[in-house]
Amino acid sequence: MATTRATPASVVALRFDGTALWAIDQTALPWEERRLELRTAEDVAAAIRSLAIRGAPLIGVAAAHGIVLELSRDPTLETLERACGLLRDARPTAVNLAWAVDRMHSAIRTHDQSGADLFSIALREARRIDAEEEAASNAIAAHGADLLADSRRILTHCNTGALAAPGRGTALAVIAELADRGSLEGVLATESRPLLQGARLTTYELAALGIPHELIVDSAAAGLIAAGAVDAVIVGCDRVAANGDVANKVGTYGLALAAHAAGIPFVVAGPTSTVDLSTPDGAHIAIEERDPGEVRAAAGQPLTPAGTRCRNPAFDVTPAALVTALVTERGIVRSPGSEALAAHTARLG
Amino acid sequence: MATTRATPASVVALRFDGTALWAIDQTALPWEERRLELRTAEDVAAAIRSLAIRGAPLIGVAAAHGIVLELSRDPTLETLERACGLLRDARPTAVNLAWAVDRMHSAIRTHDQSGADLFSIALREARRIDAEEEAASNAIAAHGADLLADSRRILTHCNTGALAAPGRGTALAVIAELADRGSLEGVLATESRPLLQGARLTTYELAALGIPHELIVDSAAAGLIAAGAVDAVIVGCDRVAANGDVANKVGTYGLALAAHAAGIPFVVAGPTSTVDLSTPDGAHIAIEERDPGEVRAAAGQPLTPAGTRCRNPAFDVTPAALVTALVTERGIVRSPGSEALAAHTARLG
Repeated sequence: MATTRATPASVVALRFDGTALWAIDQTALPWEERRLELRTAEDVAAAIRSLAIRGAPLIGVAAAHGIVLELSRDPTLETLERACGLLRDARPTAVNLAWAVDRMHSAIRTHDQSGADLFSIALREARRIDAEEEAASNAIAAHGADLLADSRRILTHCNTGALAAPGRGTALAVIAELADRGSLEGVLATESRPLLQGARLTTYELAALGIPHELIVDSAAAGLIAAGAVDAVIVGCDRVAANGDVANKVGTYGLALAAHAAGIPFVVAGPTSTVDLSTPDGAHIAIEERDPGEVRAAAGQPLTPAGTRCRNPAFDVTPAALVTALVTERGIVRSPGSEALAAHTARLG
Repeated sequence: MATTRATPASVVALRFDGTALWAIDQTALPWEERRLELRTAEDVAAAIRSLAIRGAPLIGVAAAHGIVLELSRDPTLETLERACGLLRDARPTAVNLAWAVDRMHSAIRTHDQSGADLFSIALREARRIDAEEEAASNAIAAHGADLLADSRRILTHCNTGALAAPGRGTALAVIAELADRGSLEGVLATESRPLLQGARLTTYELAALGIPHELIVDSAAAGLIAAGAVDAVIVGCDRVAANGDVANKVGTYGLALAAHAAGIPFVVAGPTSTVDLSTPDGAHIAIEERDPGEVRAAAGQPLTPAGTRCRNPAFDVTPAALVTALVTERGIVRSPGSEALAAHTARLG
């Protein structure tokens, strides 16, 4: 699989060597750059569930390779079905996972009728998905940087860089491109509790890229936005419904409210593989509730009285009305609603 | 000083024994119920700065006793001035601190001309402040519970209970009163990064009170409010400006935006000692920026790459327009603006 570009050599989230998928264990960053050797679809599904592999586009690419791994050992349609089911169910919210699995399934079932080798078909399709998502990252970076050319100070949430997607990522790719163009003063990064993808991963990537940044607790974002600390907010996305509602990392909705109240752009970046026209609106997006233990601790350190009950929704939904623009590899959709999104995806669909 | 009532025996935040102020060390909760023996104004100021003693009303009461401690050893006006300056500067945002110090100063300077003993005057005034704030807590609880009689599920932020104020607290006193009246189903408590007053202290108090509760990360609040998970939001306050703008724990503003968008009440509770008519609006409230190290760690556990730069505003400002009602010991101010607040404070002023 393609390695990430324009990022430090250490940030290579996934690498397929023909027999194993090597994944940087994102739960161990920034303290340890540990690689996991994944040899089965279940290995890949477990890594996705634990967030060792995370980021909407990246889990799609990982799942595609999970199917490749499985077919390398047992190139049968039964194995294909089993691997697809297993990987599709690993996490519910990011549609890229189901999208990649469905695309692999469809490509293999279609070509299987020609008598071709299942493993070869799977490998070719997984490589295509990976290459397309990497190309999408580059295009998103360019379109987003055009859109935010006047934004010198940008706030972002969670991690949306080379650890979250092939290439340079999504929202963080836009930020990296703005830095390359010389117009960026600095980034305000939210820590993204409970699993601290901002505090652990975004800081790690921004430091490696040499981009000035400051970290804040999630709840400080709204007040700093109101106080004029940033010119724009840009985030990634896990699923964009047909009407433009956006499911993304928990906390995104609050950032959108604050940006709206302050009158600054709230921009969502992601490949079109994240747009799900079969989901009519945000109310129909399944929101993953993760282990309450994630809330009771931070980086393994207990924070609460023993046995404290917790709720742990991993995502929230931002209504389309709060989204200034959606940036995909195909361009910019301003005020994304049903018609605009249908047109955007149909144009090159 | 009065001990807290209607709360578990263990939650006695402050106790003055005539020669020392004993404070439960809130930085060690919930793991250890450790008491600090404070013997000087500097001891008290240090405990306030470290957040061993915290909560807007409580730091006022503690500061009053810091002056008592100092005058017990050296009952001179020079010592009074020095102790007042030291304690007044311990933290900038919660006006209760300056209010209590100024009140002590004024009472002592006034009575000093009568030839009375400075220590006795100071002790009497500190006890009055404590008793008044405890009575205020009870009145706030009653008024707030009247206001929120129909709210069965309530979200609160940070800690505003018996650890934050004499008596049962402010916002959490309202919640406890609703539970006593039998109308409360449960509480959603935010963890309140970076120092986790919600995760450590509010859970500890709610568990001791037997009130059903669930903890969430701060950024989950907005999405859960939008999803209808609660009927109202109630928070405390550190300073209410003359126009009704409210400075409170960082994250409060985001909760107010979310409550407003969802059309549920956003209620602020605090004694009138928190209302500062000399500060015209929120833009004139000094927001304390605390040690960035608080963001880089959680309960002592490092969370970020070493040396990550952080911003750490401890408070934010919620515009009066987002406040459904302010509850003080004097009653309820709906849509608190300049005229309503002036009338409210003048009525019994």
